[in-house]
Amino acid sequence: MTRPRLDFWYEFASTYSYLTAMRIDEAAAHRGVAVRWRPFLLGPLFAKAGWPTSPFNIYKAKGAYMWREMERLTRAMELPLTRPDPFPANGLLAARVALAIEREEDRARFTRAVYLAEFGRGERIDAPETLAACLSALALPAGPLLDKARAAGIKAALRANTETAEQAGIFGAPSFLCPDGELFWGNDRLESAIDHAASCVIV
Amino acid sequence: MTRPRLDFWYEFASTYSYLTAMRIDEAAAHRGVAVRWRPFLLGPLFAKAGWPTSPFNIYKAKGAYMWREMERLTRAMELPLTRPDPFPANGLLAARVALAIEREEDRARFTRAVYLAEFGRGERIDAPETLAACLSALALPAGPLLDKARAAGIKAALRANTETAEQAGIFGAPSFLCPDGELFWGNDRLESAIDHAASCVIV
Repeated sequence: MTRPRLDFWYEFASTYSYLTAMRIDEAAAHRGVAVRWRPFLLGPLFAKAGWPTSPFNIYKAKGAYMWREMERLTRAMELPLTRPDPFPANGLLAARVALAIEREEDRARFTRAVYLAEFGRGERIDAPETLAACLSALALPAGPLLDKARAAGIKAALRANTETAEQAGIFGAPSFLCPDGELFWGNDRLESAIDHAASCVIV
Repeated sequence: MTRPRLDFWYEFASTYSYLTAMRIDEAAAHRGVAVRWRPFLLGPLFAKAGWPTSPFNIYKAKGAYMWREMERLTRAMELPLTRPDPFPANGLLAARVALAIEREEDRARFTRAVYLAEFGRGERIDAPETLAACLSALALPAGPLLDKARAAGIKAALRANTETAEQAGIFGAPSFLCPDGELFWGNDRLESAIDHAASCVIV
């Protein structure tokens, strides 16, 4: 029997996506649900909403709350937290590299490594050196993957991912899309999304 | 010993505040936490953010998601759901009536009755008749309370509540404020807020 699959849509600049990335594989495996890691860009969607930067920067009270909550949630999950500067980070190259990686499991490992560099240690993820270090630490070929990430095919794939996300009704990250099209938004909806995906019958 | 108190900040037009109103008293009582019901208006805060109406109307994808999620959550809670028209409702008079009510327990009962009229049956809560019916059904004096709600003292009290909410960092509803100033936002944070309030030592 094929396992039901949950699409995990994430943006590398997204704080709550960091939390989800660190726990989704284990949580989904418990329920027999496979995870597809799908990076996309929130920037183009935010621009259409009239936001030139993260709404957490535009709406000060909401931003202050988010950072306080990140402190609470990372403490509870025993994860490190450093506020990246600038915030939001430019996750374009990281998303392209993630798409350049062929194996799902390697994309997941790379994604977690980038989030830990960004939100754990405050490193610049728009720097190729940071991404190369993440890849090398996982024994993935940094040079070839960074070259592939800059080629037209991967650029188009990321644009297509972002368009697919928008067409599916996605407006923030992390978001979860079930096989039947049911959408869940937010790290705090992960369990509901996994439950729903597990209930989807694969024909 | 005095029970720790959690301030429940709600807006009558808020869909997620409806969900919280229907469950907060039982959830808090379980943990020995007292609840103070504090109505306020989101409109003035939204206006400062540049939003002439609910962000759920302005940002279409987010609004569509919210209504879909309300269907899922009300089904899980076995609560009725009717989309009020117009949305958001004008909750000004309801908030004033809630503040005109003296006893905390009566304010809670009135608030739940108004939410059920609004989101359960789709009634207009800006109509004094709707609020009068809610009051009468609870054996509260509708005429005197509506008169009191329209007097200067209550109008000022609601303005003060809204200013207090803003100064506490509140930007949405429902929000929960603990005795030590710790803020939680969203129906899905109710349990965390109650846990935190329960841990606050009353001196």
